[in-house]
Amino acid sequence: MATKPAIPKGTRDFSPEEMAKRNYIFNTISNVFRLFGFQQIETPAMENLSTLMGKYGEEGDKLLFKILNSGDFLSGISPEDITSGNTNKLAAMLCEKGLRYDLTVPFARFVVMHRNEISFPFKRYQLQPVWRADRPQKGRYREFYQCDADVVGSDSLLNEVELLQLMDEVYHRFGIRVSIKLNNRKILSGIAEIIGEHDKIVDITVAIDKLDKIGLENVNEELRSKGIPDSAIAKLQPIILLQGSNREKLAVLRNELSLSETGLKGVEELEYILDKLETSPLRSELVIDLTLARGLNYYTGAIVEVKAIDVQIGSITGGGRYDNLTGVFGMPGVSGVGISFGADRIFDVLNQLDLYPEDSLQTTQIMFVNFGEKEEAVCLKHISALRAAGIRAEIYPENAKMKKQMGYADAKKIGYVGIVGETEIEAGKINLKNMSTGEQKLLTLNEIIDLIK
Amino acid sequence: MATKPAIPKGTRDFSPEEMAKRNYIFNTISNVFRLFGFQQIETPAMENLSTLMGKYGEEGDKLLFKILNSGDFLSGISPEDITSGNTNKLAAMLCEKGLRYDLTVPFARFVVMHRNEISFPFKRYQLQPVWRADRPQKGRYREFYQCDADVVGSDSLLNEVELLQLMDEVYHRFGIRVSIKLNNRKILSGIAEIIGEHDKIVDITVAIDKLDKIGLENVNEELRSKGIPDSAIAKLQPIILLQGSNREKLAVLRNELSLSETGLKGVEELEYILDKLETSPLRSELVIDLTLARGLNYYTGAIVEVKAIDVQIGSITGGGRYDNLTGVFGMPGVSGVGISFGADRIFDVLNQLDLYPEDSLQTTQIMFVNFGEKEEAVCLKHISALRAAGIRAEIYPENAKMKKQMGYADAKKIGYVGIVGETEIEAGKINLKNMSTGEQKLLTLNEIIDLIK
Repeated sequence: MATKPAIPKGTRDFSPEEMAKRNYIFNTISNVFRLFGFQQIETPAMENLSTLMGKYGEEGDKLLFKILNSGDFLSGISPEDITSGNTNKLAAMLCEKGLRYDLTVPFARFVVMHRNEISFPFKRYQLQPVWRADRPQKGRYREFYQCDADVVGSDSLLNEVELLQLMDEVYHRFGIRVSIKLNNRKILSGIAEIIGEHDKIVDITVAIDKLDKIGLENVNEELRSKGIPDSAIAKLQPIILLQGSNREKLAVLRNELSLSETGLKGVEELEYILDKLETSPLRSELVIDLTLARGLNYYTGAIVEVKAIDVQIGSITGGGRYDNLTGVFGMPGVSGVGISFGADRIFDVLNQLDLYPEDSLQTTQIMFVNFGEKEEAVCLKHISALRAAGIRAEIYPENAKMKKQMGYADAKKIGYVGIVGETEIEAGKINLKNMSTGEQKLLTLNEIIDLIK
Repeated sequence: MATKPAIPKGTRDFSPEEMAKRNYIFNTISNVFRLFGFQQIETPAMENLSTLMGKYGEEGDKLLFKILNSGDFLSGISPEDITSGNTNKLAAMLCEKGLRYDLTVPFARFVVMHRNEISFPFKRYQLQPVWRADRPQKGRYREFYQCDADVVGSDSLLNEVELLQLMDEVYHRFGIRVSIKLNNRKILSGIAEIIGEHDKIVDITVAIDKLDKIGLENVNEELRSKGIPDSAIAKLQPIILLQGSNREKLAVLRNELSLSETGLKGVEELEYILDKLETSPLRSELVIDLTLARGLNYYTGAIVEVKAIDVQIGSITGGGRYDNLTGVFGMPGVSGVGISFGADRIFDVLNQLDLYPEDSLQTTQIMFVNFGEKEEAVCLKHISALRAAGIRAEIYPENAKMKKQMGYADAKKIGYVGIVGETEIEAGKINLKNMSTGEQKLLTLNEIIDLIK
């Protein structure tokens, strides 16, 4: 019996057209990574579960795809193990390996395993799929690509500056107008410190974020409902109402956080970045935004996020500075800063704004119609010459009906069709049809090479 | 407790240098695929086990990596299922999905699922990893890449010709001298037919292959030991002793196979290919080789294999024509022809012959030494200009000891180091050190751009 084929939910096939677009995205990002001195690595799709487990929280452990041990996977498992109902424990006995959940933990594992071969600071990038057993929904997949760049083994803030310039260059190349939001974990800590509410950072940033929508009174009300005392809320007022230019915001913060060493350190770090960017300014806008609180358990310095200005969609790039990437694998003291591009969202943005350059389609540039053996022989010589000139060329492999051959060229979005019949062979020329205008011209091979190149 | 990190056996990390080499290989092959009108697709790493099982024989089913169902994977499984000892059946209950084992079955599944969007003939290529739970050994991995190109939905032998030219172009670009071996399944069937031994094709080709090593007498002895009667062995003599040019071999075969319609069809197909290649000859040698019997259960026409001439290693590319790619998924009548490049072996050959072009390393082209804030500011402006000119440039992110900074440039194989101190700033120049010759020159930024580009 024939099986009706399907693919696992949350996964995707990519058609030639989608692949051309994705290659354009990955190539653009990779080229900029390399322009800035980053080098690519790859790690295996499968990691030992001992490497992955416990790194993404309890929820993350559940979302790991686990791989059934090969051979006799039941050996060493007792009937009690099975009937105990402890599926986590049983899964750990049935499976030694799991699929990569992100690129960060495998990168940390890579750094520790290859510490003696790596020359620090290590600027690496990685473009690979990751897998998560999340409930699939619109825009959320069980297999998707991450594009990460990190510098590890250097505390210099110059790395933050370089990464901001790198993001700016990538979006300039894409032609996507973006706003780059910047925050610093030390400032958030400083705020919590001065009001004496260390564990309320998230509540505070969430509330501040609503200022434009619900107004100051309601923000204060929300803070109160989270158990923050009135005295603290009073101290927070200048921070909630923070506005103006980046420099103006930093001036206010410097003042308000004067009693927090950590907070002032955060302000200084942002000032350093703004100073450095004065000599080579970004093309995108850069906005200091205290409501940015992504990766709060992880980031220790800069926090950054990129939003597309012309499309309503979540953050399309994010990152920050972290301490102690590799401590969990027994190698302390490796800090770093990194960013991650969201390829799937960039794909959506480029589609919505129709920003793919024409030549990113990477399809055949000229197809020859096949009229039979004699004409075919002439076309094959032409095709060899075209390919030698770097032009993507093909001939329809059979002497099929003209309509079928033209339909093929049409469906494949081929730019030109070459027609070589008796008349053209005698004239030593090619009848070239421009598939978008319909225009037809009798040209020599060399004229066609010049035209298409 | 810190875990000592490791990766699953049979899998690999790829370092920046290895990745640069692998990218060179994949980019070269992809560019030629596109030059010939092939378009890329990608399929998910995970397929439903119903798609994969039964497609690779009993042994293949065992080598599939299976993914444990998410959530309560024991639901619906009775204690008897577990104690029955039928691990295959139990695995099928615990796992719905498995990792891709090759690119052919997912491609067949893709063609059937997207039959209405595809314009046939469909020329697709695919470069993705596959996974096999094989026992790891030297040169055999549990995760490795396949690079396949296929044309499906066209019976024209022109496709065979094009694929031979494509392989020739790829190895020309690599600078690897190769011998392309060509055979045809129909000729092998014809041979079996005329001697009345349909199921002995493999025995016959294996024996013929030993002619050079063991001599005619021993070849005949081996055939006898396989149960082939003397009368058949007598008929086989001209075929065992087949030699001379490709045309001479075909003349002998045409004669010997005159009573087999299938055999003659095979001879004609090879003649057609030789004829077509006369107008645009291959640069590599093409040898008709009857001992080529790869994929005998699968291929129905051409069989092809590429061997490196200057390195002792197995076949580095192989392929052939097949019938009925998609029948198992309920879509009959889709035949095709395809080839597969062995990226790991090509990597070994290029390494052994040291054939990587210098610019394939893709590392940073110029690094600036960091002497502190003032000099750094000047360097950052230079770097922006260099990057705008497309040159991969970076600055060491900290004012570390000169030796450490130079060591970094050395380890990363950076071509040039730019030195900008007080003197250089005053002169408006850069002291450029060529890292391979040690030579140092005082140059302007524009001179450096011209030099490196």
